[in-house]
Order: sequence, then C-alpha cells, then structure tokens
Amino acid sequence: MAEIQKYLFTLTCREAGAVRGLGGAELHGLLFSLLQDLDPAEATVLHEAPDKPFALGPLTGPGRREKGFLHCESGTHYRFTLSCLDPSMTGLADALAGYWSGMAVRLGTAEFSGEAVEEVYPGGLTYQHLLERPPLPREITLAFRSPTSFRQLGTQIVFPLPERVFGSLLQRWNNFSPLQLHPDLDFSVLLVSRYELQTSLVAFDRYSIVGFTGRCSYRLPPRFPDFLAFQIHALARYAAFAGVGYKVTMGLGQTELVGEG
Amino acid sequence: MAEIQKYLFTLTCREAGAVRGLGGAELHGLLFSLLQDLDPAEATVLHEAPDKPFALGPLTGPGRREKGFLHCESGTHYRFTLSCLDPSMTGLADALAGYWSGMAVRLGTAEFSGEAVEEVYPGGLTYQHLLERPPLPREITLAFRSPTSFRQLGTQIVFPLPERVFGSLLQRWNNFSPLQLHPDLDFSVLLVSRYELQTSLVAFDRYSIVGFTGRCSYRLPPRFPDFLAFQIHALARYAAFAGVGYKVTMGLGQTELVGEG
Repeated sequence: MAEIQKYLFTLTCREAGAVRGLGGAELHGLLFSLLQDLDPAEATVLHEAPDKPFALGPLTGPGRREKGFLHCESGTHYRFTLSCLDPSMTGLADALAGYWSGMAVRLGTAEFSGEAVEEVYPGGLTYQHLLERPPLPREITLAFRSPTSFRQLGTQIVFPLPERVFGSLLQRWNNFSPLQLHPDLDFSVLLVSRYELQTSLVAFDRYSIVGFTGRCSYRLPPRFPDFLAFQIHALARYAAFAGVGYKVTMGLGQTELVGEG
Repeated sequence: MAEIQKYLFTLTCREAGAVRGLGGAELHGLLFSLLQDLDPAEATVLHEAPDKPFALGPLTGPGRREKGFLHCESGTHYRFTLSCLDPSMTGLADALAGYWSGMAVRLGTAEFSGEAVEEVYPGGLTYQHLLERPPLPREITLAFRSPTSFRQLGTQIVFPLPERVFGSLLQRWNNFSPLQLHPDLDFSVLLVSRYELQTSLVAFDRYSIVGFTGRCSYRLPPRFPDFLAFQIHALARYAAFAGVGYKVTMGLGQTELVGEG
C-alpha cells in the first residue's frame, strides 16, 4: 500500500439538509463509523491514537451558508478529500473506497449517496518521493485553504508563524514516515516575506474555532544550508497531505504549496 | 506644554518630484534639520535618544505610486502627522508650527511650501486623560494604517502578536509618561479573535521593510482583572500617538483604536 495518498470522495445530496461548519466533525464521525464496520480493531486503534495518520478536507459544494451551516440542496454534488499518511491508513481508505459508490450517507440533517472515489495521485506517493523532488526557490508560499490555527496551552495561535507551521508538519512527518527528518530544525529562522490572511469562525457542535485562511510566503535566510533547505521543501510539499495545525482530521488546516501540482 | 499632542501638517507641492516609500525617512530628515535650526542642543539630545518621544505619519496625498516612489504633482496638497509624547517634544513641535506656513521644503526631488499646522486635540492630552477614559468592551480592534512590524534579533516579526503590539506600547508609555504602568503585564493572555491583514513593502534608501496593514481584534480572557484591563485600554488609546513597533519615527506603525474619535 502507498505510504501517502489523497482520495477525492464525491457524493450527491438525496435529501436537503444542513451541515454544520465545514462538515469536518460530521465527516470525521462518518469515517469512524464506516471503519468500525470494516475493521473494528483497526478503527479502535486509530481512534485512540494521539496523532492520526490522516487529514479530512471540508465538505465543499453549492448551497446557502447561514449561521454556521451549509444548506445542502437535493440533486447537487458535494466532495471532500481524505489524505492518508501511512500504508495501513491507505489500506483502510482503499477498502472504504470499494464500498463508497451508492452508499447511503447522512451528514447533519442532509442525506447523500456516495458516487465515486478518485486517487488524486494514482498509485500513491512515498515519503522518499517528497524528499527527492527538485529543490524549490528560496521563497515558498503556502495557501491555507481552510481555516487554520494552532493550539497552545489552553489558547490558540492564529498566525502562521514559521515555527508553528513547519513544526506541525515536522511532527506529523516524524510520526508517520520511515525516513526521519532532523527533529531540532529551527524554523524560526525562516523569514515571513509577505502574506494576505484573514480569520473566520468555524462552527462545531458546542463551540467555534477561529482560524486563518489566505497565503503566506517564507524565505530561507541567506547562507541557509542546502541539506536543511530540502527538508523544509519536503515539509512544504507534505502540507497538502498532512494539513497544518489543529483539527486537520476535521476539515481545518487544509494547506497547499503554491505553484506545485 | 501638553504631555501628548498630535499635529496635522499640510503642505502644497510647488515643483513636481518623487518621494521614496511613505516619505518617512524624508520627513524624519526634515524634522531634524528644522529642529537643528530651532534648538541645536535639544535636537542633538533627541537625535541620540534610543527611544524618541514622537511618531511621524506617512506623507499622504494624490499622485502616482510607482516602484516604491510617490510622484507628487505641482499644485496638489499633502499632509503628514507628528505626534508628541512628552512636554518638551510638544514644545518643540509648537515652536516649529509657528514657522511652518510659507516655509520652502524639499522632500525627495519634490518642492513644497508649508501651509497650516493643526492641533488634532486642541489643548492636548495627558497620560492621565488616557487612563481615565471610560472602559472599553472586552474585545478591542486596532487598525494598522501604515505598514507595521517588530524587530527581533536581526530579523522581523510581521504579525500583530498581542505581546508585541502591547509590549511596544507599554515600553513607549513607561519611557515617557509620568504615570507608570505595571511593567510585567502579560499581554500573551490576550486572545486574537479576528483579523484581516496583509503585508506590503516600504522602500527606504538602501533597503526595504516588510510591514502589515489591516485590522486585528484582541479579546480579554474571562475573569481578567479590571484594574489590568484599564491599563490595556489606555495603551490601545495611546497607539494613535505612540505608533506600534519599528520605525514609528519614519512613517511606519501608524495605528488606531477602531471606534474611538
């Protein structure tokens, strides 16, 4: 099984209804109830893992957004992504994908049926792939496509400080990759060279979370060693799979390196 | 002399020309050459002070902005603000204001003549005034009207982290006010509740500086003591005079509490 894979799930709304926030908590619940049926032992292990080897994108599609809810319309198409960060998670997702078409699914008060599942990277990727790709320019830009934030002792940090962004990616990488990166990389040396960012509020069941979206560019300082630069480049590429920051398993922190497929 | 005053200087362009960036370095140079004529001893003391009791706003007015230059047009009006943070600076600015009208002034390659000087707060304010004003809501919003950033050991921080923003204001306040605020206020407990921010590049003679503009809201945590809250409110009001962060004496860091005169 591939070490890294990203799946695009599509579904059709059969009965109109409302889904809270980005749909992340609903999709997370759906994933675990499907896994519970498929492989109860694996589902329990995964559920109890402090860092989970996947990221779930928001539910996207047409419909009125009001008071923190997306009102899904009957007959329209929706989608979400599931990224898997190790072979066993990819195996589970692959098995799920086999059952998806025609499956009846409830999210919030809306009813859907599963359509297709597509591998975004046919055949999948490995951690080595991410490390072996050609070097990037000295300045790289990340696009934070869904609200992103970082937890910190009872509060949150809602700015893409380099040490938070790349620190979060490094932690996920070293948790799941057979190739370890240097654990003490000092990302605070990265210069924030430009950004355009704004916050928004994502509704969950009993609370809301502030996150930022937009773009932020980071520049390597002069004379930064190449062998460390390529670790940073690998992490920037990893963002599209691992997500960044808090609640990446519930639609937050969807991030992409700008200028790469 | 008032402890705190803000002056609005107006001037008319007599001969078209270009002024670099926000005009901050040019205005800073102009201010010191005028002070040198007026009171050489005071000018020297002020020039050597590590923290200067004033802030200079950018040169604003019509004209094409191109490659980091403002192209000023003959016959059009321009303005800038000078905030003074102690009585001796207010005294100097007052004396300057007496000479301003009709004075021939060069900024970059443009020629101007001084028009009027207006006291934005007739009679001026005191530090006590800022402390005695009614309390603000639990959430306050600062508008960063000119590019703002913070220096940190050879690099810059370009996010309005509460500890940086209010830390910068506290330092200026305690340097110039007869009423001292608690020097160990922990501003990192302020929650960033929302923002909309973007960076831009300000051209100086031999380098450029990245700064952010936009709005950022800060919320006091629950059960935050009132006697500390009112110190934070005073600092938020002080921002309009002191500026925030790096190079406030050269047009950067112009900041205002949103929703107050």
